[in-house]
Amino acid sequence: MRGGSPGNQYLRITRHPDFRRVRSGYLVPREGVGEPETRVGKVYRGVKRFLFGRPLASAEEASERVSRPIGLALFASDNISSSAYATEEIMRVLILAGVGAIALTMPISLAIVVVMAIVVFSYREVIRAYPDGGGSYIVAKDNLGPLAGLTAGAALLTDYTLTVAVSTAAGITAITSAFPELFPHRVPIMVGVVAFVMVMNLRGIRESGRAFAIPTYVYVVSILGLIGLGLFRYLTGTLPTYTPPAEWLEMEAHGAEALGLLLILRAFASGSVALTGTEAISNGVTAFKPPEARNAQFVLVTMGILFATIFLGLSFLASQFGIIPDPREATTVVSQIARTLVGESPYFYLIQFSTAVLLLLAANTSFNGFPRLASVLARDRFLPRVFQFRGDRLAYTSGIVLLAIAASSLIVAFRGSVTSLIPLYTVGVFIAFTCSQAGMVRRWYRKRTEDPRWRPRAAINALGALTTGFVAIEVAISKFALGAWMVLIFIPVLIWLMWSIHRHYANLDAALRPETPLDPTQIRPRYVIPIAKLNVPAQQAIAFARATAGNGSVTAVHITDDPEAAERLREEWNRGQYGDAELVIIESPFRSLSRPFLAYIEALREAYPSDQIIVVFPEIVHARWWEHLLHNQTALRLKTALLFEPGVIVTSIPYHLAR
Amino acid sequence: MRGGSPGNQYLRITRHPDFRRVRSGYLVPREGVGEPETRVGKVYRGVKRFLFGRPLASAEEASERVSRPIGLALFASDNISSSAYATEEIMRVLILAGVGAIALTMPISLAIVVVMAIVVFSYREVIRAYPDGGGSYIVAKDNLGPLAGLTAGAALLTDYTLTVAVSTAAGITAITSAFPELFPHRVPIMVGVVAFVMVMNLRGIRESGRAFAIPTYVYVVSILGLIGLGLFRYLTGTLPTYTPPAEWLEMEAHGAEALGLLLILRAFASGSVALTGTEAISNGVTAFKPPEARNAQFVLVTMGILFATIFLGLSFLASQFGIIPDPREATTVVSQIARTLVGESPYFYLIQFSTAVLLLLAANTSFNGFPRLASVLARDRFLPRVFQFRGDRLAYTSGIVLLAIAASSLIVAFRGSVTSLIPLYTVGVFIAFTCSQAGMVRRWYRKRTEDPRWRPRAAINALGALTTGFVAIEVAISKFALGAWMVLIFIPVLIWLMWSIHRHYANLDAALRPETPLDPTQIRPRYVIPIAKLNVPAQQAIAFARATAGNGSVTAVHITDDPEAAERLREEWNRGQYGDAELVIIESPFRSLSRPFLAYIEALREAYPSDQIIVVFPEIVHARWWEHLLHNQTALRLKTALLFEPGVIVTSIPYHLAR
Repeated sequence: MRGGSPGNQYLRITRHPDFRRVRSGYLVPREGVGEPETRVGKVYRGVKRFLFGRPLASAEEASERVSRPIGLALFASDNISSSAYATEEIMRVLILAGVGAIALTMPISLAIVVVMAIVVFSYREVIRAYPDGGGSYIVAKDNLGPLAGLTAGAALLTDYTLTVAVSTAAGITAITSAFPELFPHRVPIMVGVVAFVMVMNLRGIRESGRAFAIPTYVYVVSILGLIGLGLFRYLTGTLPTYTPPAEWLEMEAHGAEALGLLLILRAFASGSVALTGTEAISNGVTAFKPPEARNAQFVLVTMGILFATIFLGLSFLASQFGIIPDPREATTVVSQIARTLVGESPYFYLIQFSTAVLLLLAANTSFNGFPRLASVLARDRFLPRVFQFRGDRLAYTSGIVLLAIAASSLIVAFRGSVTSLIPLYTVGVFIAFTCSQAGMVRRWYRKRTEDPRWRPRAAINALGALTTGFVAIEVAISKFALGAWMVLIFIPVLIWLMWSIHRHYANLDAALRPETPLDPTQIRPRYVIPIAKLNVPAQQAIAFARATAGNGSVTAVHITDDPEAAERLREEWNRGQYGDAELVIIESPFRSLSRPFLAYIEALREAYPSDQIIVVFPEIVHARWWEHLLHNQTALRLKTALLFEPGVIVTSIPYHLAR
Repeated sequence: MRGGSPGNQYLRITRHPDFRRVRSGYLVPREGVGEPETRVGKVYRGVKRFLFGRPLASAEEASERVSRPIGLALFASDNISSSAYATEEIMRVLILAGVGAIALTMPISLAIVVVMAIVVFSYREVIRAYPDGGGSYIVAKDNLGPLAGLTAGAALLTDYTLTVAVSTAAGITAITSAFPELFPHRVPIMVGVVAFVMVMNLRGIRESGRAFAIPTYVYVVSILGLIGLGLFRYLTGTLPTYTPPAEWLEMEAHGAEALGLLLILRAFASGSVALTGTEAISNGVTAFKPPEARNAQFVLVTMGILFATIFLGLSFLASQFGIIPDPREATTVVSQIARTLVGESPYFYLIQFSTAVLLLLAANTSFNGFPRLASVLARDRFLPRVFQFRGDRLAYTSGIVLLAIAASSLIVAFRGSVTSLIPLYTVGVFIAFTCSQAGMVRRWYRKRTEDPRWRPRAAINALGALTTGFVAIEVAISKFALGAWMVLIFIPVLIWLMWSIHRHYANLDAALRPETPLDPTQIRPRYVIPIAKLNVPAQQAIAFARATAGNGSVTAVHITDDPEAAERLREEWNRGQYGDAELVIIESPFRSLSRPFLAYIEALREAYPSDQIIVVFPEIVHARWWEHLLHNQTALRLKTALLFEPGVIVTSIPYHLAR
């Protein structure tokens, strides 16, 4: 530097104990450097460490590959867990036409399994085409352009949020089925569970293999055992009889509707919630051990078979028993099946607890998917950058917190009722399916020269797109008045919002014209220092301005409505040592301080358009926060106003008052 | 200046059309200069002008002197208006011992008039001693020291607030007495009236003589007419009979208490509210035409006589009729007297309306007294400076707004009930009386050599001090549980608060040790510029730092968790033209941007303790407010943190994005 030798400063810092030089011009700080040393700061850090654990370095990120059995447990939990409520949601629609209509549960379940098979085979093709992970957003954006991608993205963000709300609500209902005394407290319990899962995710738990696999298998084995027992007693003609509480029948009776095509379509739409989570595997192909794509495809098909078995088994047993869904939503259909078959034995409690745990795991998978999708959208500049930032534990903090808040709000707004949330849930899922499958069709066609077998593959995805598109429209219409309208308004708003954000970031990159010359020799500083008195803070500001003014000028400005006091200030100025600096006194007949000052700056800019105006504020920093309240906020107001004056630089010279 | 000729800048501004040079180094801005030119700014200004009128220059302040009749109307309205509720408040206590106890109204009223006479003669002495205006704060502070002054000040601020609340509540009750259908809406009406009086005072209405005098005389004449009519019919034995609604008697009955000394003392305490406003004249001596003191004394005594006549007259008639106070507080005792004597004739409505208008005038006088006292306390540095600031219309904005908020809160909290507010009201008034009278005794003694007649004068004030001190204690005890305790807690808290504020301002004036050298030649700047990219805003900041660095240094600091991206930045830097400036890259393994940066600044301060560190932020100013939300708030957080680093200067180089 002029005066000192270049590199001087950097070298002196490399000898500082807080920093380590890695190579020329590169520093790495010691761990914990820069953390607040105040008492409040330490307490805050202590609480944070207790809740979330010690900070993790970026290099500590673990990436574990999973086998087929573990992969099944991890990625299928979302989908398989929907078997806990899918049958029930079909029955809740059918019962509106009376108890007899319950018989239609089984045929409708079969129709849903057919759709599921089509979707599973469509996603096998997605995995083949996108071995690096093909979420609906990526597939739609790549093949159909950004708007389709955003549609899929908005639908998925909605879907993830509803997964958390619905899975948590269903999981806690599995618990209240066993412990009815908890039912009145369900909403706070659900919100507490969401908060707990949020904190766990902020700690950075990821699918750590085995531990997460256990609940899925416990559920699958115990529920298949229950279904097996039911089938055995059905075949041996020893099925126990089920008698619903008399008051439930009364409560259901007076809502009776006609059993027409519309009601059947509504029941089908409700049951379609069974397909949620199907796309999870195609998102996580890279997490599998090699051969990744083959393993992922295997797991996808296995999941489809497992789910179909459990879903059909439960629907069959529910129809056979003639189960009536609890109109208060305090006990689940699955719990009634279990209670009828095995009574309130330990096996009953095993079923209820494993259902609850699996549903919470399903909620947890959204805490992985939502923040990751938000970070991809932020990377593509459709969401604020903050969603890309990973916190102390390498978790995407903003996405996790936003998801928890949104899901909790839904739970509170819908009083934790699964049945009220379902109409909002299914639409988003099927919109995302449709975008993704349509994108795949386009893709096969574009790559038709590369792949000779493109026709059958395109046909599979076309069937998938048509089927899911039909279901999306079917659900939107039949559930419109029940809540789907909210999602159909929300998704376009979200798309518009993301589009605006994208346009904003694009503007930022547009060619910029400097306001301050980029050549230092062309900068002529004109310092202006607003002063109330000639106290130490003001003198500091004047000295700083004089030290850095170079070929520019320094002017202290005093605004007054008291000419006599101003005269005394001028005398004091004349007695001081202020070199070339000048004092200007502005009389303010209307007593305002900021307006004449801003006008002065404006006049200066017009008088010296090519010079650089720098306003230096002598800033008194108080030791106690409330002391700031005792002072006129004029400086703050002026700074805010000056922010919008092009080419005016603002500097604060602090003066710290002792306590 | 170095480079330019001195005085250059100032002279060029004097030729700018927005400013006018008055003498060397003095500028005066054109009217309206510096007002916001944005659409929002214009609308805001339009609304403000409509509500409050055009801004007034300091020189436009009017000071009108008043004659005795006008002075009586202006300064006596507060005191005389208390006759509208004083009798009623005595009766509301007595009735607790049954309807028969009402007979004690007259003797208690007489006792209060005796106290009032003592207070009036005490204040005659205050006027003699303080012809320039002797509020209780001034008198107590001058003679008994700052703590006594603050006690009087705190009591007066409380008193003014309660005057607004009580007068507004009583005024609206006079209206609901005539129009009972308004009674359920009384609280919003009262708050609306306080807001209206606030706006009027922000417009800067002052006691503009005649216009304000009319309501006082209308009230005095019409109420004296009513009393005269009552006395005439009493003397002629033609007094009509009064029958209270039967349900009132029932409502009163079940709260029956024993008629003991305690109850009588409580009734006396309630009636003492009659003395509020007595000190107003001693505050405003300078407003009278000469001979000021003589005129003020005359008006004081006249006020006392008028008030006593009305108060005793109403108490006499109420006792004679055996009026029962309305337990719902929907109609006043005065309205019942009027209704009994003249029925619902136009005269009845005249009484009610003139009472209401007079009470609102009384509330208005507090809007004069409170802000003026707050500005005196702020001048003496017991309150924040903002209370000294006069707005566009020369009114003390902050005091007026604070009073309106406090009074409205009281009205809402006490549901607009005069009877509930009274226990809070009277204590403060009598504390201020006592401080002032005790101060006067001290004063006569100190000046005993100057005034040969000091003994009788001191005796009058001593009697005043003893009487008002006794009443203060009596009210505090007998009304403690009913609400006086709030005031007895609030006043010491307010004193403590004002004392802390005073200490804070005193600390500010203590000798200050500069953090930045006051000699410019001793300042060596070390610029640090946090940069994310080498975009135009960053380049501007670097150019500015280089232009003003002088013999110092310029360092751009880039913090990264992506070493590859940092490498690309370094290559870009090496291709650029940054002269002697250096680039330091800090790797942040924990991804935090602010902690390593603050640690770097800390290390720099330790390495160069005698140099001046200046952090320059390239600041992008967005055109739309929500766009700021899309960006990391890191810069703002860093600026706030740096504010508390001694000796670190912060500069913002703005870059304005186009819309």
